[in-house]
Amino acid sequence: MIQKVTPTKSADLTNRARMLVSCPDQPGIVAAVSQFLFEHGANIVQSDQYTMDPEGGLFFIRIEFDLEKLDSREAQLKADFAEVAAKFRMEWSMTRADRKKRLAIFVSKEEHALLELLWHWQSGDLDAEIAMVISNHDDMRGLVEPLGIPYHHIPVSAETKAEAEKRQLELVSGEVDAVVLARYMQIITPKFIEHFPNRIINIHHSFLPAFVGGKPYAQAYNRGVKIIGATAHYVTEELDGGPIIEQDVQRVSHRDNVDDLKRIGRNIERTVLARAVSWHVEDRVIVHQNKTVVFS
Amino acid sequence: MIQKVTPTKSADLTNRARMLVSCPDQPGIVAAVSQFLFEHGANIVQSDQYTMDPEGGLFFIRIEFDLEKLDSREAQLKADFAEVAAKFRMEWSMTRADRKKRLAIFVSKEEHALLELLWHWQSGDLDAEIAMVISNHDDMRGLVEPLGIPYHHIPVSAETKAEAEKRQLELVSGEVDAVVLARYMQIITPKFIEHFPNRIINIHHSFLPAFVGGKPYAQAYNRGVKIIGATAHYVTEELDGGPIIEQDVQRVSHRDNVDDLKRIGRNIERTVLARAVSWHVEDRVIVHQNKTVVFS
Amino acid sequence: MIQKVTPTKSADLTNRARMLVSCPDQPGIVAAVSQFLFEHGANIVQSDQYTMDPEGGLFFIRIEFDLEKLDSREAQLKADFAEVAAKFRMEWSMTRADRKKRLAIFVSKEEHALLELLWHWQSGDLDAEIAMVISNHDDMRGLVEPLGIPYHHIPVSAETKAEAEKRQLELVSGEVDAVVLARYMQIITPKFIEHFPNRIINIHHSFLPAFVGGKPYAQAYNRGVKIIGATAHYVTEELDGGPIIEQDVQRVSHRDNVDDLKRIGRNIERTVLARAVSWHVEDRVIVHQNKTVVFS
Amino acid sequence: MIQKVTPTKSADLTNRARMLVSCPDQPGIVAAVSQFLFEHGANIVQSDQYTMDPEGGLFFIRIEFDLEKLDSREAQLKADFAEVAAKFRMEWSMTRADRKKRLAIFVSKEEHALLELLWHWQSGDLDAEIAMVISNHDDMRGLVEPLGIPYHHIPVSAETKAEAEKRQLELVSGEVDAVVLARYMQIITPKFIEHFPNRIINIHHSFLPAFVGGKPYAQAYNRGVKIIGATAHYVTEELDGGPIIEQDVQRVSHRDNVDDLKRIGRNIERTVLARAVSWHVEDRVIVHQNKTVVFS
Repeated sequence: MIQKVTPTKSADLTNRARMLVSCPDQPGIVAAVSQFLFEHGANIVQSDQYTMDPEGGLFFIRIEFDLEKLDSREAQLKADFAEVAAKFRMEWSMTRADRKKRLAIFVSKEEHALLELLWHWQSGDLDAEIAMVISNHDDMRGLVEPLGIPYHHIPVSAETKAEAEKRQLELVSGEVDAVVLARYMQIITPKFIEHFPNRIINIHHSFLPAFVGGKPYAQAYNRGVKIIGATAHYVTEELDGGPIIEQDVQRVSHRDNVDDLKRIGRNIERTVLARAVSWHVEDRVIVHQNKTVVFS
Repeated sequence: MIQKVTPTKSADLTNRARMLVSCPDQPGIVAAVSQFLFEHGANIVQSDQYTMDPEGGLFFIRIEFDLEKLDSREAQLKADFAEVAAKFRMEWSMTRADRKKRLAIFVSKEEHALLELLWHWQSGDLDAEIAMVISNHDDMRGLVEPLGIPYHHIPVSAETKAEAEKRQLELVSGEVDAVVLARYMQIITPKFIEHFPNRIINIHHSFLPAFVGGKPYAQAYNRGVKIIGATAHYVTEELDGGPIIEQDVQRVSHRDNVDDLKRIGRNIERTVLARAVSWHVEDRVIVHQNKTVVFS
Repeated sequence: MIQKVTPTKSADLTNRARMLVSCPDQPGIVAAVSQFLFEHGANIVQSDQYTMDPEGGLFFIRIEFDLEKLDSREAQLKADFAEVAAKFRMEWSMTRADRKKRLAIFVSKEEHALLELLWHWQSGDLDAEIAMVISNHDDMRGLVEPLGIPYHHIPVSAETKAEAEKRQLELVSGEVDAVVLARYMQIITPKFIEHFPNRIINIHHSFLPAFVGGKPYAQAYNRGVKIIGATAHYVTEELDGGPIIEQDVQRVSHRDNVDDLKRIGRNIERTVLARAVSWHVEDRVIVHQNKTVVFS
Repeated sequence: MIQKVTPTKSADLTNRARMLVSCPDQPGIVAAVSQFLFEHGANIVQSDQYTMDPEGGLFFIRIEFDLEKLDSREAQLKADFAEVAAKFRMEWSMTRADRKKRLAIFVSKEEHALLELLWHWQSGDLDAEIAMVISNHDDMRGLVEPLGIPYHHIPVSAETKAEAEKRQLELVSGEVDAVVLARYMQIITPKFIEHFPNRIINIHHSFLPAFVGGKPYAQAYNRGVKIIGATAHYVTEELDGGPIIEQDVQRVSHRDNVDDLKRIGRNIERTVLARAVSWHVEDRVIVHQNKTVVFS
């Protein structure tokens, strides 16, 4: 059985935490944050920062730190940091690395994106829990259930769409941290989206913003492009218009027909989606004004 | 002086010819063409073919062959081949490799694309003659004239546009085989285009069809793409809509502002344009229905 | 179950054949071959050729053609072609596209390369039969047997190595066309190799010839390279020294430790091995003097 | 004249400084450094850090900051920081961004690497001064002197090698911060190297450690690799064995002979060398145990 492949044992992350901070830039932010962590006995093990514009722009920082007995000290640490945050008007989050994010994966009839996520999950490279798979078809059940992951078949038609979404929301609400659309060929409604702002990741099978919408490989073929791509992005109300997390491409030629583009493209989609989901669950992505800062 | 760098001596191409053929597919084409060449004493040194669709599609072939005393036999060879061509309803061309294509390069104020072409020309990698450089500014004269290449400064304004184009046409008509727009920031009119169908090569500083039109790097920055690109294409009446010859891309991140994208992009533009122009002058490109077949 | 995913229906290849030819270059080869095929009623659907050196070098060609009632005419066609071949001193093969090559996959404890081949096989992208999986461990049985593929666990130790190889040879002899070492961490002996000349494909987890031998990711880390790679090659008696079929690479940085290199590298290995095996089973590879000509 | 192309005006860097720090990791480093800068009125505009190993490893950080009246306060700032540095046993440097590094470029007969550096310098992308070009041939004088850069022709033969090096050292000593070997086809002696530890950048025309030494393109051709590369590294006593700063690669095929590899490779060499030199002059590279940390 596939499940015999034991997930790789991660490094001990019991006392590891991650902070994401964004605020208006001003002198002293790094000093204040690092001083705070030092005084609380934390050791910074990784830090990445980015200033949009040294003159009056926004400041972003991601910090990983280790703190002894994090479990019992987390609440107080957050309460203390809230004071620092208030002073600098920070938007911030602090999460524990050993609390794996829970994902719902939505899929239709193409299995490659789902399979890639399952593979990365099994090999330990995707540091998340796959809480459930939801599909408008029953085809993938045999891939999913042997792994111990619940599989929900919720058919979708024009008439049942509202009802189907209601059922999806019941399943995921409070149960998952993020939703991954692994080639789920249905439009997500604004109502669903508002439950998961910047927490629904879609893989679009083109190099956005080229070839928005349906049949992007056919569009690419007709335009005669020499390179095709795939794009992982957060879902917003604008179709294929949300913040881009990751993209990649592959060279093609006149010899490749639409089926070839699909075949080549599937490999790009797999890679790009897996990277984007990993970055998301490791708290490496900050969304700002329909763009992402990715501390990869 | 730059001109001291002697163009690399090419291999002896005196007896080398190149054929480009396209016709409806049917059995026997390769046999007919290769038999024809064999009977005329030619030796095929390279051959690439492509069938769009084995069932009733189009057939394309590019052949390089050597023929002793090509110079004196060329006319007869072409006359003889016309009979084969008629039988298969071929569109075809036969050119001599030692007759370098003559290019006019159009440029505005950015020198990188021009410099790259000059460098490839000096190093012998670009197998063409640069007959002239035409610019709406005088800035590049010092780069061009020391190399022995005529430089024509033809200012363009809203009022003088028609007059300027008339002058451009006088300069290039009968003098050049193709026109290269090496970041020439002016729209080419349909009238000019019809003099050089599929023989005007433009470098557009985006990964088309994304970011058509002006300021593509600013567009790319605003959309938050993770990869930027450049596209070399033949110019048609539709802005940035002509057949794509070559594209390439480079990874960027949130750290790159518009100026960074321009800087990174310049390197992509240089590479892509140089490749496209090389393929064109070596008769490696066939245009079919707004797409290219490139036998690179 | 995984096996529910039906392999993609390939195009109808009942009457499709593939020829691989190599011979000393001389005028008339293409004419003779294409004339032969035309006279026998075959239609060339793809053709790629390569001349090592126009002056007295070797000539290579790969042709795909369709011929009505190929099944009943194959024997005569081959007999007739043998005369053409003799005239030009050709080494050649002619295979039917609907006769899928049979593969034995050898694997040890890392599953990623095996999984990738299984995935490409299930999706129909790998046009082969997987006749068996052989492993020196039992770990992958659960991945393989549910797909209906026989799994043979043959432990290997210093004492049992000769015996184990004997058993492997019994299993594969006459049963498979090629052997794929999908991260099989055992040395293959010359005796085994001589049964499958240029028909054993190995994936080596470095960009050969850099980092031959064991622990290439540790070697790469210690050297501080900025790019890592993987190499698929035919196995010869020289360790990691056989003809290279395909390579690919990925950028890394000082931040990546040995485990990161392994994780990034696994994705390269998967892609490179899948491509190499596909090219092999589609008769796209010719070996000449420890190098490959790949008509991809 | 080429020199008419005015170098791009950089952003105002009068008050910008860069710090590079490495020291044993321990809690409080970031806090101490950022607190120090904050108290001295500096504003951190960029910061990158890297911890080799959270448990007892080395810590590296690069900081860019702005400080009003840097010119008059630099000496005191450094004196003050020395106390912080002593406490954490730091190796450190602090340099002013408006003090461009001075380079000597060594070149032989191939001009492409030199031309690329000149182009990046002219376009303002290479933030350095080119103090002189030294060559064992006179060929490049015409490229260099019109730009106002001194050109020194120092022939080198077996007999004159020691004398030539003496003259080179006289020219560069005290005059340049770093030496760039832009395809300078002579061995640099240990004596010369010890004057510029980790400050001589060489471009090697292979993907190191593959193909050390002479004629790497011929070696690559003979091995039949499918990808070729170039490597920029600091020069140490071990031939082609110094710390790698940057590498890049390009796909090739069996069709490419040694001349093709050279032609393709020249473009890789240009790109890789230009990137490495830029990173060096912008203080983005720290050398540690024959490897580099590059904060690009």
